[in-house]
Amino acid sequence: MDAAPATPPFLAACRGEPHDRVPVWFMRQAGRSLPEYRAIRGDGSILDAIAQPDLASEISLQPVRRYGVDAAILYSDIVVPAAAIGFGVDVAPGTGPVVTEPFASATDLDRLRPLEPEADTPYVLETVRTLTAELPPDVPVIGFAGAPFTVASYLVEGRPSRTYAKTKALMLGEPALFAALLDRLAHLAADSIASQVAAGARAFQLFDSWAGALTPAQYEHHVLPHSRTVFERLAGLDVPGIHFGVNTGELLALMGSAGADVVGVDWRTPLSAARERVGAGRALQGNLDPAVCLGPWDAVEAEVRAVLDESGGHQAYVFNLGHGVLPETDPTVLERVVELVHREGKVIDP
Amino acid sequence: MDAAPATPPFLAACRGEPHDRVPVWFMRQAGRSLPEYRAIRGDGSILDAIAQPDLASEISLQPVRRYGVDAAILYSDIVVPAAAIGFGVDVAPGTGPVVTEPFASATDLDRLRPLEPEADTPYVLETVRTLTAELPPDVPVIGFAGAPFTVASYLVEGRPSRTYAKTKALMLGEPALFAALLDRLAHLAADSIASQVAAGARAFQLFDSWAGALTPAQYEHHVLPHSRTVFERLAGLDVPGIHFGVNTGELLALMGSAGADVVGVDWRTPLSAARERVGAGRALQGNLDPAVCLGPWDAVEAEVRAVLDESGGHQAYVFNLGHGVLPETDPTVLERVVELVHREGKVIDP
Repeated sequence: MDAAPATPPFLAACRGEPHDRVPVWFMRQAGRSLPEYRAIRGDGSILDAIAQPDLASEISLQPVRRYGVDAAILYSDIVVPAAAIGFGVDVAPGTGPVVTEPFASATDLDRLRPLEPEADTPYVLETVRTLTAELPPDVPVIGFAGAPFTVASYLVEGRPSRTYAKTKALMLGEPALFAALLDRLAHLAADSIASQVAAGARAFQLFDSWAGALTPAQYEHHVLPHSRTVFERLAGLDVPGIHFGVNTGELLALMGSAGADVVGVDWRTPLSAARERVGAGRALQGNLDPAVCLGPWDAVEAEVRAVLDESGGHQAYVFNLGHGVLPETDPTVLERVVELVHREGKVIDP
Repeated sequence: MDAAPATPPFLAACRGEPHDRVPVWFMRQAGRSLPEYRAIRGDGSILDAIAQPDLASEISLQPVRRYGVDAAILYSDIVVPAAAIGFGVDVAPGTGPVVTEPFASATDLDRLRPLEPEADTPYVLETVRTLTAELPPDVPVIGFAGAPFTVASYLVEGRPSRTYAKTKALMLGEPALFAALLDRLAHLAADSIASQVAAGARAFQLFDSWAGALTPAQYEHHVLPHSRTVFERLAGLDVPGIHFGVNTGELLALMGSAGADVVGVDWRTPLSAARERVGAGRALQGNLDPAVCLGPWDAVEAEVRAVLDESGGHQAYVFNLGHGVLPETDPTVLERVVELVHREGKVIDP
């Protein structure tokens, strides 16, 4: 190993700096699609698994070993901070986050005290420390948190929703209360990510998975200010931040303007269109349709090449799926995707 | 009544012809949100209700009476033709379409014989005839069918899906079989709509509700040719055709090019951006976020005005929601929306 190792390709791409190969990782690379995960995971809530640093770090390492991806993402869940401060949220297998008493009025704000990461989520930090110690120096750990809107949608709806009807009704009907809720959740996210960075994470992703349910005007007025709070609070840490959601084609410019270094793009929006909307100075991440990985290899290869073509060889680019790995994905396919991206992905900018 | 009545505003707007006021109707205006619907609907499958022309026509008329909308949409379901030819599909209350034996291989094509509308769906035609007789002449009946991709997604998945994983795997893995399936479904849709037009429908909507799950390239290659078949087969009937799906921001130009007179837009894409993508010569329909109607009236009014502003006074424009009415919507709000659109909506083009 060199005395002064080069910047890992993933971090260089996030920052739009020169590097040799297109870096690649997969959202949900750690988890349900891996037999070695299913072998050690056991039943029970994901929150129980996350609370065991030995297990959580092993699960986070599995895809790095198997796929040779350029970054490891912490095995955790976006509801961990809210659960850790006692809001009363669990993740039901096969359903997703469920909340015993959904957020409904101003008194519920009292259930959202500030996070004390070392006391509330010591296991998360222990997992990040273990990962940082065990990973090779060119494979950074990505920390993460749920963005204020997406976490709010779970706390308000009480369970996964297709329409976000209650969340939007609260947003429009009680905008001051909604803003207070999102402000609490912004600090929860920022505190959690800051602690992950202190423990060794060298990048982070803010998951606003469901922001794409909003109109651009709703997003800009009711949500963007709070997501911006998260990025502003983390700006001094000098780690790149990724901002991602699905169905966000019309929100990409706004999501970049929140302060993200990297904007995640789902598969619906071609990277060339995304580049135009996001503008210069920010990197893109994405955007292979995860369902494509269920098709035959010929089709996968063609779509991977199409994504690489769309990236235009831009050095501010990270290959990823457009959403998480589907549970029924054959890991062999993802192995071949990594190999193909590493072999064929060109970084053309000087 | 005049001897030669003017073209109804809804039809004039679909064709981009002069008219006096912005027409408005709501997807799912007939149904779950109306107390008078719940009073007569009964339990059981929606397919049973659809098979009773007296009931189905009454349900279709209810929103016209209550709201004063500019068009009536037939109370039916996109799986009706497939169910009528015996594919084995039902609509489970609270779940959606469920298929006993999902489409999986070439032999399943034999389960999709051509529709004989008068023999297979006489109740649909009877409902359209009743509606046509009972409605005032300036309120046309809109017929409809499911687009090949969206119906295929139900037949392949066997139940509603979030990822369309099986459908996409079939599309990519067996493209010839997928094309054969979509071709059958295109003729099923065209035959059904043609029979509805013969019975009195004066416009139609092709619902490709889930096409927005595809990349533009996937849509263009695997789906568009079959949706185009539907519009081509109906082009001679001289009734305007609307083409709609959600999450279709990146597909709007392609969906127009299928042969639609009107492109439906969900709430995520501002109408001004949609107009630019669709181009001149086609009308737009949309796009109030249905969840907005759950907020207080002030918020609803502001968002209705914002949509009208975005429409730019274009005469090729129909006000609607960006997706169906949510079941928990207060009908009073929709009454006021219609009143507001009729009062404030300006048609500026000469």
